[in-house]
Amino acid sequence: MSAKLNVAVLGATGYSGLELTRLLLRHPRVDKPVLLRRSEGSQNTHPPQRTGKGWAPSGNDEINLADIFPALSGNGRYPLEPLSWASLKQQGVGLLFLATPHEVSRALVPEAVVQGIRVVDLSGAWRLKQAQHRAIYGFKDNDDDAVTAAKLTEKAVYGLPELNSDQIPGATVVANPGCYATTVILALAPLLRAGLVDRERGIIADSKSGVSGAGKEPTSRTHFVSVADNLSAYGVFTHRHLGEMAEQLQLTTNELTFTPHLLPIPRGILSTIYVHLKQPMQAAEVESCYRDFYKGKRFVRVFGTPKLPEIQFSLNTNYCDIGFCLAQDGQRLVIVSCEDNLIKGAAGQAVQNMNLMYGWPEEEGLL
Amino acid sequence: MSAKLNVAVLGATGYSGLELTRLLLRHPRVDKPVLLRRSEGSQNTHPPQRTGKGWAPSGNDEINLADIFPALSGNGRYPLEPLSWASLKQQGVGLLFLATPHEVSRALVPEAVVQGIRVVDLSGAWRLKQAQHRAIYGFKDNDDDAVTAAKLTEKAVYGLPELNSDQIPGATVVANPGCYATTVILALAPLLRAGLVDRERGIIADSKSGVSGAGKEPTSRTHFVSVADNLSAYGVFTHRHLGEMAEQLQLTTNELTFTPHLLPIPRGILSTIYVHLKQPMQAAEVESCYRDFYKGKRFVRVFGTPKLPEIQFSLNTNYCDIGFCLAQDGQRLVIVSCEDNLIKGAAGQAVQNMNLMYGWPEEEGLL
Amino acid sequence: MSAKLNVAVLGATGYSGLELTRLLLRHPRVDKPVLLRRSEGSQNTHPPQRTGKGWAPSGNDEINLADIFPALSGNGRYPLEPLSWASLKQQGVGLLFLATPHEVSRALVPEAVVQGIRVVDLSGAWRLKQAQHRAIYGFKDNDDDAVTAAKLTEKAVYGLPELNSDQIPGATVVANPGCYATTVILALAPLLRAGLVDRERGIIADSKSGVSGAGKEPTSRTHFVSVADNLSAYGVFTHRHLGEMAEQLQLTTNELTFTPHLLPIPRGILSTIYVHLKQPMQAAEVESCYRDFYKGKRFVRVFGTPKLPEIQFSLNTNYCDIGFCLAQDGQRLVIVSCEDNLIKGAAGQAVQNMNLMYGWPEEEGLL
Amino acid sequence: MSAKLNVAVLGATGYSGLELTRLLLRHPRVDKPVLLRRSEGSQNTHPPQRTGKGWAPSGNDEINLADIFPALSGNGRYPLEPLSWASLKQQGVGLLFLATPHEVSRALVPEAVVQGIRVVDLSGAWRLKQAQHRAIYGFKDNDDDAVTAAKLTEKAVYGLPELNSDQIPGATVVANPGCYATTVILALAPLLRAGLVDRERGIIADSKSGVSGAGKEPTSRTHFVSVADNLSAYGVFTHRHLGEMAEQLQLTTNELTFTPHLLPIPRGILSTIYVHLKQPMQAAEVESCYRDFYKGKRFVRVFGTPKLPEIQFSLNTNYCDIGFCLAQDGQRLVIVSCEDNLIKGAAGQAVQNMNLMYGWPEEEGLL
Repeated sequence: MSAKLNVAVLGATGYSGLELTRLLLRHPRVDKPVLLRRSEGSQNTHPPQRTGKGWAPSGNDEINLADIFPALSGNGRYPLEPLSWASLKQQGVGLLFLATPHEVSRALVPEAVVQGIRVVDLSGAWRLKQAQHRAIYGFKDNDDDAVTAAKLTEKAVYGLPELNSDQIPGATVVANPGCYATTVILALAPLLRAGLVDRERGIIADSKSGVSGAGKEPTSRTHFVSVADNLSAYGVFTHRHLGEMAEQLQLTTNELTFTPHLLPIPRGILSTIYVHLKQPMQAAEVESCYRDFYKGKRFVRVFGTPKLPEIQFSLNTNYCDIGFCLAQDGQRLVIVSCEDNLIKGAAGQAVQNMNLMYGWPEEEGLL
Repeated sequence: MSAKLNVAVLGATGYSGLELTRLLLRHPRVDKPVLLRRSEGSQNTHPPQRTGKGWAPSGNDEINLADIFPALSGNGRYPLEPLSWASLKQQGVGLLFLATPHEVSRALVPEAVVQGIRVVDLSGAWRLKQAQHRAIYGFKDNDDDAVTAAKLTEKAVYGLPELNSDQIPGATVVANPGCYATTVILALAPLLRAGLVDRERGIIADSKSGVSGAGKEPTSRTHFVSVADNLSAYGVFTHRHLGEMAEQLQLTTNELTFTPHLLPIPRGILSTIYVHLKQPMQAAEVESCYRDFYKGKRFVRVFGTPKLPEIQFSLNTNYCDIGFCLAQDGQRLVIVSCEDNLIKGAAGQAVQNMNLMYGWPEEEGLL
Repeated sequence: MSAKLNVAVLGATGYSGLELTRLLLRHPRVDKPVLLRRSEGSQNTHPPQRTGKGWAPSGNDEINLADIFPALSGNGRYPLEPLSWASLKQQGVGLLFLATPHEVSRALVPEAVVQGIRVVDLSGAWRLKQAQHRAIYGFKDNDDDAVTAAKLTEKAVYGLPELNSDQIPGATVVANPGCYATTVILALAPLLRAGLVDRERGIIADSKSGVSGAGKEPTSRTHFVSVADNLSAYGVFTHRHLGEMAEQLQLTTNELTFTPHLLPIPRGILSTIYVHLKQPMQAAEVESCYRDFYKGKRFVRVFGTPKLPEIQFSLNTNYCDIGFCLAQDGQRLVIVSCEDNLIKGAAGQAVQNMNLMYGWPEEEGLL
Repeated sequence: MSAKLNVAVLGATGYSGLELTRLLLRHPRVDKPVLLRRSEGSQNTHPPQRTGKGWAPSGNDEINLADIFPALSGNGRYPLEPLSWASLKQQGVGLLFLATPHEVSRALVPEAVVQGIRVVDLSGAWRLKQAQHRAIYGFKDNDDDAVTAAKLTEKAVYGLPELNSDQIPGATVVANPGCYATTVILALAPLLRAGLVDRERGIIADSKSGVSGAGKEPTSRTHFVSVADNLSAYGVFTHRHLGEMAEQLQLTTNELTFTPHLLPIPRGILSTIYVHLKQPMQAAEVESCYRDFYKGKRFVRVFGTPKLPEIQFSLNTNYCDIGFCLAQDGQRLVIVSCEDNLIKGAAGQAVQNMNLMYGWPEEEGLL
């Protein structure tokens, strides 16, 4: 057995899962990941049937990830094997990444935990502590599995390393943050924790995301002709990421207004965030607040005002970039934060979490 | 009854059909078109079931085209009504436009003809005279309807007005040309008819199209993330439009190589065409050949060499633009032709055909 | 002399000027517009030298607009002639459109007025009544021409037809609104005039524009590689359009925060606007407020909540589309407004203003 | 002195130079590269003045590459220092990369060679052995430096590793191939060297490139609005890369027709290439020809017919992907080759050449 960590990925055929696979393939401390698949009938759109024994695939033909993403070819094969706990144990897999719909994660994580396998889950299944925020996901909190789920929910750590690096190392289940949520939480946390924001006046997060954030499934909304030469807002007041923002920032959902938009680009998020400071401040003070908070945090780049990050700056990196402009009145503050939604907003952050879980340098495999 | 022509459109919910509806709505000689729908179960992807009585819709709810394309809103409603021959007769519809899959057109056109309704069909169903070219569409040429189909095929006129303006006025069924075919045929016809091309050396048509040409149905191929920042060739040697190019240009499919590509733009086609001239020529002679051929043809713009058309130049117009460069050897000729695939390549050409069918000025409603 | 109005356009080589020329060419009540040019040395980037005699071009070669924009070709020539007041008078030009930098407009409009020629100016030169808002443009308010300028400023009408249709008919100088300003003012005016907005909590306008809004001059910022796959915020708290928004909405610039962004699309604007209502309202009440305010206004389309406009819906039209979502608390309101920045945000609105100035139907030439 | 190789880059502010810098920064066998700059007055657009002493910068302010490309920030500073041979010697620089205009390379390479510094030049300055092909670059072959230049031209190795891996290790000057040329040469070399192609019938290379290939300088041609939603052909029969294709493939420029097009994407090239085989072949035979030729070549991926590469597959990699379709007649062959123009078409290939020059594994730093 190798001295490297054995990991597995379920969902490598999606955008985040593919990105994750790429990162893992070049990570110096993990072995070539075991790529898992669910049965064809259950792929992506429908919640899977639980079997208690992992996930039973219907087909027998080998699926090679490089056939789905020819960009991967040229370095050997990447077969997808059906999920089987026995097989994972046999292969010595210690960590499972789930890049799956939240229903799938909801079903599989308890099984993995029973098997003694740690999990980084990229879905929204285990991010929320408060039932009111979970409601939108439609989880049944009162069925047979409710007790297990409640315990796991309690146990799961929200994997935003810049905020929760103390809890991640010991975690069994890390709930990897949502892509939008990462940009909004990182932009606001320093100011809110310092008590600088006039929360009563409301906080606005106006976010814009590339299309990969909407997933790989073809829909009329992701059709090229619908997206190109266009911009649209959606999910106003109702987007699922609002709950995790509120929980992590200790805000009510009345204090935070969040509007996502669909940008005609493949990847990247820019969030423009509006807050009102309690007292007039100097720009240098605001900058210090950010720099102090993120001191030693490898993956947040604070921009000196009035320079603002742009989406291109963080594409293909694990950075979240943060910049701001302060009005002459010293109270109105516009913060801009950017990230690559598939990396810092998903796969890169998942690797960052793994690094912390195993006590490795936070940036291992991410530069 | 109005002095204007009553027309109907089936397929207004697709890209070509919508464009056609827009053109008809502002055409001074036609009434507001009757917009038709098929049953929901049969939309776009599956061949319809023939009823002999038109098309039986399954639903009863009114569908408003402006709900599907909000760009249309603000000028009243555009209800889609189920196709019924009786209703069309009652409304005095004299001309039916079909912007439908070819199987649907194959089924409906004979019915329309029986009803005494003229047809402009935007599909590939009736464009091909030679069985070898039709084979790729999978039409059954030997079933009960074969005799009818054979007669109609004979009767149908290939509606490329710049070549066939003599046959279009009297036509009952006009087969509107394919989008790629229009750019390739118009670019080559003058040279080929003048006998200037060395056909033995082969003719290459390397075409590039925007995504609307692939239709409105969401597929993994039309997903924004698949198309953006990409270019791909497809259908090499096998694209359906090859047959109509060969027939109209009187070439064999061995003499013409056609490669379509999918461009990361919503609409527009550029074809780069390579021919070898039998004898060395001057650029001015080549230009004269084009200018003479298209003299008086309102919708072909010949560019003076070495200026070449670009896709942007003809977007939102009914023009096909043609330019060329001649090598120093006087024999290698590169021709570039462009059009808006939804207008000159589909809806605009359909209106141009209607104008000719009814003896109106060719450009009526198209400038 | 024709019974149609004779008009002239200076600046037809820019994006707005070209769009305007296209609209005027198909307007039924105006003659083919006289297209004017300034000397080559002064084009676009540098403020011109005033001569008192119009604008002296340096070159003699005829410039044809169709050579600059080949899309225009095929319908005759569009020569640009040097601006000369004598020539304009001789040609009976009654209305001059200026699609020029604001310095040029600042210099030329007083001359035009002296000549008895009415003006629709698409620049920011004459939009602002308050000196504090004009400051950012760097106009000298205290030089020899200050008195003239002050008088003209007083006289100039802010040409937003939905708000100022009473003053436009009699105007000598119409200051055509800024593109961003149009979307923000139209989205906010109904609520503010009805006194529904809690102004003390601040109003946020987060706007996103296509690149044509940044002008035709090639810069590193408008380079394709800088814009594609990107999004960037700019001009936070300092954009020139803030002043006209504040004036028309009777807000202070402290009450309105405006953040423009550069979208990777050629044209179109979407503004996402955040207000807090004084009292909790029902969505139907908000919708009524909009519908009542814009009753009979041909070019504002109010969307029934929760449907929101998208940029594509208003492209190539003179519409400004407005939709909104109201939070469950009944007080937080997110408004989305969209337009084509070159039409409702520039050239189309200029034609709409012309229609009002001459007592024609507001939509003449605009549908 | 470090055991790693010391290298320098002139031109890191351009697209290729930046990409090269990124690759070198993570290359395990080279030290952090010395980044060089020329004087501000001479940047990019104008040929530099030769000084015989390297390049004299006019400014004194430190320029940091991370200020120009904020994406680079977060990992220390990247100051650009003025080119000085003395300084390079002092820093032990053994290899200089030039990502500069060809005039600059023409001037500097002889100086570098005199200094005993090896060079990988990314421009077209030293790629061409035949004067007829060099003519288009306007080099003076008969001035004072002509003898030196002639000698260097003789000495310079065309750095296409898949063809010339035997000459590259010993080279003093490696002329890194053009981006288009790489895709066309690699697609054709196997067939031509095997004598399979009927050259008399002519070979067509129809290539399409992203905008970064046109350089970073803002021009009306690279303006976002000119490129987006567009496609244009240019340089037909006259593009500079034609000469190097002809030389490497031992064709005349009459036998090869090359048409480049500008795609609305930031990066990537797809070339569609048309040849006529001398004798009818089976697809499997064609595939074998490619597979045999590229056996052991790490950076060419041969696709099994009829699968064709797409631009996305090779983006951000050093691969050139090659696929093909054979007509039923067994003689008409359509080959599609793709690469990332900034990597395999420029910076990656430059690193690959360095690896060969220093006897390192060809893929070092490139996976």
